[in-house]
Amino acid sequence: MYPAPLQKLIEYFLKFPGIGPKQATRFAFFLLKESDGYRGNLARTIAELGKEVAVCKQCYRSIQPNTNTLCDYCANKKRNTEMLMVIEKEIDMENVEKTKQYNGLYHVLGGTLSPLEPSSPEKLHLKELFNRTKTLVETHKNNVEIILATNATAEGDATALYIQRILEPLKIKITRFGRGLTTGSELEYSDPTTITNALTNRK
Amino acid sequence: MYPAPLQKLIEYFLKFPGIGPKQATRFAFFLLKESDGYRGNLARTIAELGKEVAVCKQCYRSIQPNTNTLCDYCANKKRNTEMLMVIEKEIDMENVEKTKQYNGLYHVLGGTLSPLEPSSPEKLHLKELFNRTKTLVETHKNNVEIILATNATAEGDATALYIQRILEPLKIKITRFGRGLTTGSELEYSDPTTITNALTNRK
Amino acid sequence: MYPAPLQKLIEYFLKFPGIGPKQATRFAFFLLKESDGYRGNLARTIAELGKEVAVCKQCYRSIQPNTNTLCDYCANKKRNTEMLMVIEKEIDMENVEKTKQYNGLYHVLGGTLSPLEPSSPEKLHLKELFNRTKTLVETHKNNVEIILATNATAEGDATALYIQRILEPLKIKITRFGRGLTTGSELEYSDPTTITNALTNRK
Amino acid sequence: MYPAPLQKLIEYFLKFPGIGPKQATRFAFFLLKESDGYRGNLARTIAELGKEVAVCKQCYRSIQPNTNTLCDYCANKKRNTEMLMVIEKEIDMENVEKTKQYNGLYHVLGGTLSPLEPSSPEKLHLKELFNRTKTLVETHKNNVEIILATNATAEGDATALYIQRILEPLKIKITRFGRGLTTGSELEYSDPTTITNALTNRK
Repeated sequence: MYPAPLQKLIEYFLKFPGIGPKQATRFAFFLLKESDGYRGNLARTIAELGKEVAVCKQCYRSIQPNTNTLCDYCANKKRNTEMLMVIEKEIDMENVEKTKQYNGLYHVLGGTLSPLEPSSPEKLHLKELFNRTKTLVETHKNNVEIILATNATAEGDATALYIQRILEPLKIKITRFGRGLTTGSELEYSDPTTITNALTNRK
Repeated sequence: MYPAPLQKLIEYFLKFPGIGPKQATRFAFFLLKESDGYRGNLARTIAELGKEVAVCKQCYRSIQPNTNTLCDYCANKKRNTEMLMVIEKEIDMENVEKTKQYNGLYHVLGGTLSPLEPSSPEKLHLKELFNRTKTLVETHKNNVEIILATNATAEGDATALYIQRILEPLKIKITRFGRGLTTGSELEYSDPTTITNALTNRK
Repeated sequence: MYPAPLQKLIEYFLKFPGIGPKQATRFAFFLLKESDGYRGNLARTIAELGKEVAVCKQCYRSIQPNTNTLCDYCANKKRNTEMLMVIEKEIDMENVEKTKQYNGLYHVLGGTLSPLEPSSPEKLHLKELFNRTKTLVETHKNNVEIILATNATAEGDATALYIQRILEPLKIKITRFGRGLTTGSELEYSDPTTITNALTNRK
Repeated sequence: MYPAPLQKLIEYFLKFPGIGPKQATRFAFFLLKESDGYRGNLARTIAELGKEVAVCKQCYRSIQPNTNTLCDYCANKKRNTEMLMVIEKEIDMENVEKTKQYNGLYHVLGGTLSPLEPSSPEKLHLKELFNRTKTLVETHKNNVEIILATNATAEGDATALYIQRILEPLKIKITRFGRGLTTGSELEYSDPTTITNALTNRK
């Protein structure tokens, strides 16, 4: 219906997370009205993203390439190296940092296990997590703690369970993010699982 | 604007929880169109509510009068009498029961402390909670546990804190409903307090 | 689950427009906590609503009884008696009055035709509308206008169509509320029928 | 906080219509995880959008370059060339076409007047609209109709008013999209302006 390049652009935007046909169309027309300069800069940034962004070879957080192979956190000697928090996405890291309550290191999985996609475990940094944990155990002995901070969703739970199983042979302390009432939640509107968790985890 | 009785009715409905002028007006006109029979029955039920509904003299749950002075739970010998869950409203009790994970007794506060209303403690069943807990301690010694299951809101927290202080002299175990991730919550959209709780209460 | 009177009250509230089980329960517990005085007053107002509120014998707007048989508008000599706006509910009248653009009279239908309820025409003031219009025509001759201001919904449209048919023999001017873009509406988010109306009714 | 290219990308996405920091960040990380191929294709499409998409020299609809200088509609001999519908955005055109009720031509303004941006009239295709209308009048004499189909918003209304003023010297028929009740709207929830329009435009 629209000229081919616009139509192609709409289809690319449709793959963006949370974007439907109406908004994809708006994005395409927005770009069409923007200047050649803006479009050129955006295109260049997208095209070179792979070359310009590297990942920390230890925790898979994104970093500037050609400078370090480790991210700020992994390189920071004041961080507690005996604690490893496993998170689904790099964005989650930022939210944990905001609490200023955690001083350990991270491990970015890069997603969750997908029951519909048998090859999904290979896409996550699971083997790397196993090897990293193994080295940790050899160095720090009994003090190591792996904190599974995947989301409280079906996928997050399945992924945490899977990790617990593959790390079991290492015989280390593995904890999960606590469940219960979230800030602002009322009993009247809480689901049974949350109330059960709140009851079980009372203290 | 409307005839006086309609106007009065609208004003009464405006006091109902969560009802604004538009909906109060709809309720009034709805009743105006209903039959004399329906209106009569509704009016009678409302007028005699105070006489027809009593409260359990132990936990303040609403009960049928003239039959018992205790509710089903308080009268049930199979319930664990050493555990007392303090809840804000009777509706909360139903949600806890749905989990089938709790077999102790309840204590309905009848609301929360209101910082703007100095007399609010007198409206809650706090003195009764103190006396009931004292008797419990005298009977069961060290095994008593008071579970504070007020909402995870500012009012619920203030009320729980207040109860902890007044029960302190009794030197018993007091717990609070656990905090953390609620079913379905994602780290990306969680507030710092919830993440801090999830981290602290990991297990 | 709750004592019988509470349970009954919850069921009565479930009949209120737009009220589900959660809110009906909240209403019941709200009333249980209110004073005997409030409950008594509310009950009395509801019980006597039928006796205390009459309807204008001409337009079916609700009025105070024992004073007049006509409402303010119908009794007002400055109103244009040649225009009659047919509305579904009395509440709609208030919204039309707010515009200060209409000086004619009203006719409250008391609802819409319901395709699932064959007796619904009898519940509406349709025969009265016919007779009132007939008298109007006899008095004012050619200047009479009936404005059909039913909602722009399927039911409102069906009702307007039905009225047009029954008033046809009187050979008077019958108009319908105009269709088109509502304040704030954007073409990008408008449905085809609305755009068609906006196009047809351009001026 | 994030590596520079990611940070830059987030800032570019923040300029997209309706996109806030959270979603811009998700887009950036989404692209980071995508393949080099996808990123390369997207970047190329964006970079060459300006060269690959032209606009119809008559109505400013986007078209494939090097083929025609006129869009399908402008080139279609069966279209009524005496009617010109002025729309804000190309997307609006699609919604009007869906109604299958309009067979005239279009004129894409490219936006609305912005009271905060004095130079905004120059960005819109207003001078082109004037010239096009003038030519139309010279060819078709009295039968020309300009339909102003800007949105029913403050900006859309201001723009329509401005166009009416600049086209006034041409002494042609200028109409605006009709106002009134939108499909599904109820009087009880309609604003006074909409009811006034529905009343004025009754028919």
